[in-house]
Amino acid sequence: MKSKILLALLATATLAAGAHAQVKVEDAIKWRQSAYATMGWSMGRIKANVDGTYNKDEVVKAANVIQAIANSGMGALYVPGSDKGKGWAETRVKPELFTDGPKVGKIAGDFNQAANELAKVAATGDAAAVKTAFGKLGGTCKACHDDYRKDNK
Amino acid sequence: MKSKILLALLATATLAAGAHAQVKVEDAIKWRQSAYATMGWSMGRIKANVDGTYNKDEVVKAANVIQAIANSGMGALYVPGSDKGKGWAETRVKPELFTDGPKVGKIAGDFNQAANELAKVAATGDAAAVKTAFGKLGGTCKACHDDYRKDNK
Repeated sequence: MKSKILLALLATATLAAGAHAQVKVEDAIKWRQSAYATMGWSMGRIKANVDGTYNKDEVVKAANVIQAIANSGMGALYVPGSDKGKGWAETRVKPELFTDGPKVGKIAGDFNQAANELAKVAATGDAAAVKTAFGKLGGTCKACHDDYRKDNK
Repeated sequence: MKSKILLALLATATLAAGAHAQVKVEDAIKWRQSAYATMGWSMGRIKANVDGTYNKDEVVKAANVIQAIANSGMGALYVPGSDKGKGWAETRVKPELFTDGPKVGKIAGDFNQAANELAKVAATGDAAAVKTAFGKLGGTCKACHDDYRKDNK
């Protein structure tokens, strides 16, 4: 669903059915940066639990945040013209993200699936399964960062 | 639960059971700002649907993001010393948030409850009920902004 939305937006710049607020480029970039940072916080929390003392409740909360954001339709924030500009800071997106439709859609779909899987296994409290799912999710983050984020660090 | 965590942290600065990454002040502020901005994006999406053409799927996605963040235990990001400092930008929190334990806990609890209610009614697709729940949630945001955010705008 996410990849469909992303592709639809990237390919045609038309909006899906339903009401959308007009999104300014600077807001779109700020919200993207905010959503990724919120997921980064959550990933760090999960890592601390996987590497240290495991607390199911902590991991569930963090995994639910990642899942909700992954399913939020963030593709809508890649508005035309937002390959450059400043939200909280200058965007680090590479222009290729806006033109590599199918490849980006695949990465987005993998990310979405991995986020749903992590939330699912987090709810079971199975720390080993969480570690595996967490690693897979991190791989999908890296796949996008490697190809579509400048100054990767 | 959220208010309990918040109060525990504010009162004693001890950490709950389970593994926590050491959170730096600048990271804590950045993550707070990011989480609030992500909720702000989601609130704007819901408002656009409530005021315009209603799309259930859009509202569910946005409400789920708010619910997940509201339940994430953000109180842990109000680390000692983070009444001042810079994340993406200078924090706008007032120092009273760190000392008004019971009042802050009440606001946090109301916010949490309102976010859960909004996600619940969003799932039914009842636009009128969403409008009511959305208004209530906005009221809990405002309650905190009025008393604990500088330069309210």
